[in-house]
Amino acid sequence: MAEIGFVGLGNMGRPMALRLIAAGHAVRGFDVAAPAREAAGAAGIPTVEELAATAAGAEAVFTMLPAGADVRAVYCDAGGLLAVAGPDTLLVDSSTIDLETARDVHAEASAGGIAMLDAPVSGGVGGAEAGTLTFMVGGEASDVARGEPLMAAMGRNIVHAGGPGNGQAAKMCNNMILGVSMIAVSEAFALAERVGLDAQTLFDIVSTASGQCWSLTSYCPVPGPVPSSPANRDYRAGFTAAMMLKDLRLARGAAQANGANTPLGSHAASLYEQYCADGEEGSDFSGIIRMLRGGG
Amino acid sequence: MAEIGFVGLGNMGRPMALRLIAAGHAVRGFDVAAPAREAAGAAGIPTVEELAATAAGAEAVFTMLPAGADVRAVYCDAGGLLAVAGPDTLLVDSSTIDLETARDVHAEASAGGIAMLDAPVSGGVGGAEAGTLTFMVGGEASDVARGEPLMAAMGRNIVHAGGPGNGQAAKMCNNMILGVSMIAVSEAFALAERVGLDAQTLFDIVSTASGQCWSLTSYCPVPGPVPSSPANRDYRAGFTAAMMLKDLRLARGAAQANGANTPLGSHAASLYEQYCADGEEGSDFSGIIRMLRGGG
Repeated sequence: MAEIGFVGLGNMGRPMALRLIAAGHAVRGFDVAAPAREAAGAAGIPTVEELAATAAGAEAVFTMLPAGADVRAVYCDAGGLLAVAGPDTLLVDSSTIDLETARDVHAEASAGGIAMLDAPVSGGVGGAEAGTLTFMVGGEASDVARGEPLMAAMGRNIVHAGGPGNGQAAKMCNNMILGVSMIAVSEAFALAERVGLDAQTLFDIVSTASGQCWSLTSYCPVPGPVPSSPANRDYRAGFTAAMMLKDLRLARGAAQANGANTPLGSHAASLYEQYCADGEEGSDFSGIIRMLRGGG
Repeated sequence: MAEIGFVGLGNMGRPMALRLIAAGHAVRGFDVAAPAREAAGAAGIPTVEELAATAAGAEAVFTMLPAGADVRAVYCDAGGLLAVAGPDTLLVDSSTIDLETARDVHAEASAGGIAMLDAPVSGGVGGAEAGTLTFMVGGEASDVARGEPLMAAMGRNIVHAGGPGNGQAAKMCNNMILGVSMIAVSEAFALAERVGLDAQTLFDIVSTASGQCWSLTSYCPVPGPVPSSPANRDYRAGFTAAMMLKDLRLARGAAQANGANTPLGSHAASLYEQYCADGEEGSDFSGIIRMLRGGG
């Protein structure tokens, strides 16, 4: 079993670190916020008082941070992970961040002879607790192979999406389709209601037709057809609208930076901006149907 | 076997009428355009010279017409089907038209004691030729039961979507989701290309994740992952961009008329308007990825 550092002990990092411990690994957790460190300690995660201590002699360090600026600071600042990690330590960033930062930090790690992966996850807090996350991984194949047994303690699917940054790229593309299709399905249900077409009937027809999509058949935004979907519990997340907005903004930013044309992805971002501005950041992202029902 | 009238012998109506004949029914075809009548006759469909002759003593009359105005004329004009059909003739409109016309004509038929169904189809010319169409049917259950054996000669799925007009409503909602999701998937592939994420890798990841949708996994807009998709034959339709635009406009019109809010559906309509204006009306609707790749 391995010595593993874990940086970022928030809603996602804490249950992920606990899965590593449950698999028998020796984890040293760190969070820049003392209350998060204390909560992690109370949950049974051994913590250290400084970032550098997560890396000393560790086989791997995982990071789970809110945004690109946090990742850049934790890796690249004086005393950051790239300065303190030894040549045998694998660095795995599971944060969901912008592509440019992910690739910059990868390049800086490479230049210093340090192995690194970008490995954002999907599956949310529930998946982190259950150890059923999907890891979308960018980096060298040999590094992916090293990280795989550790990720397997926290996830069920580990997919290699290509070189540095491609884990972020894959997640961003997937979630852009997800956000757009959730709105499309919501618009269809809202239109059906207005014209007197029963929701269950619409579900039955579309779910076996060319409109079929995961947003409909696994995460239906109206109560009834899919009992496990958040619509059946008043849109308690699940996957929050704020997280969906974050991912749509990352996709929009990458599109702008790389000259790609994503009109519906960008439109979906502005609809989620509007939904979050209505005070719904913490609701499940499928709750956007309530805004669309408002009429137009 | 039944005497059946068939009005509208175009690209869809002709092969549908031929399926009825192949099932042993006696068909009398009519089209307002003499060349279409002649082509149908040459293809083996007995034709009549007047609309009224399709209905005389017929068990059912099917109509397959381009737009709502045509349906209104064929049913409601002096000498139209509602004037000439007997009380025992079932009228089945398989045209894809606006909801308002569908419901108006239904109401007029009802007022005259004539049984009618709206039964638009999906599956395209290929599905019509193979007899594998899906019929989405609105009307009284007892009338659907009468029409079902006849529709079964032309289609594989006959789904009852509710009362008058609900066949149109179901098709419109399904195809709005389809059009939006095809663009979303295309945007994702175009973005992936720009950021160096391989198309097959993106397909493999998204097809088992929350971005999964029929547009990706059954009709992938890039060549390779789904061998049967039109992307592999230079976007030869398939389902034309013009037909998708028609359906998106019907959805937009119904949304406007009924106070529903369909921002991404309407945006998809304008993107298909732009694609068709580029001279791509006859291309498969998945070819819109070529426009999106243009950059932005």
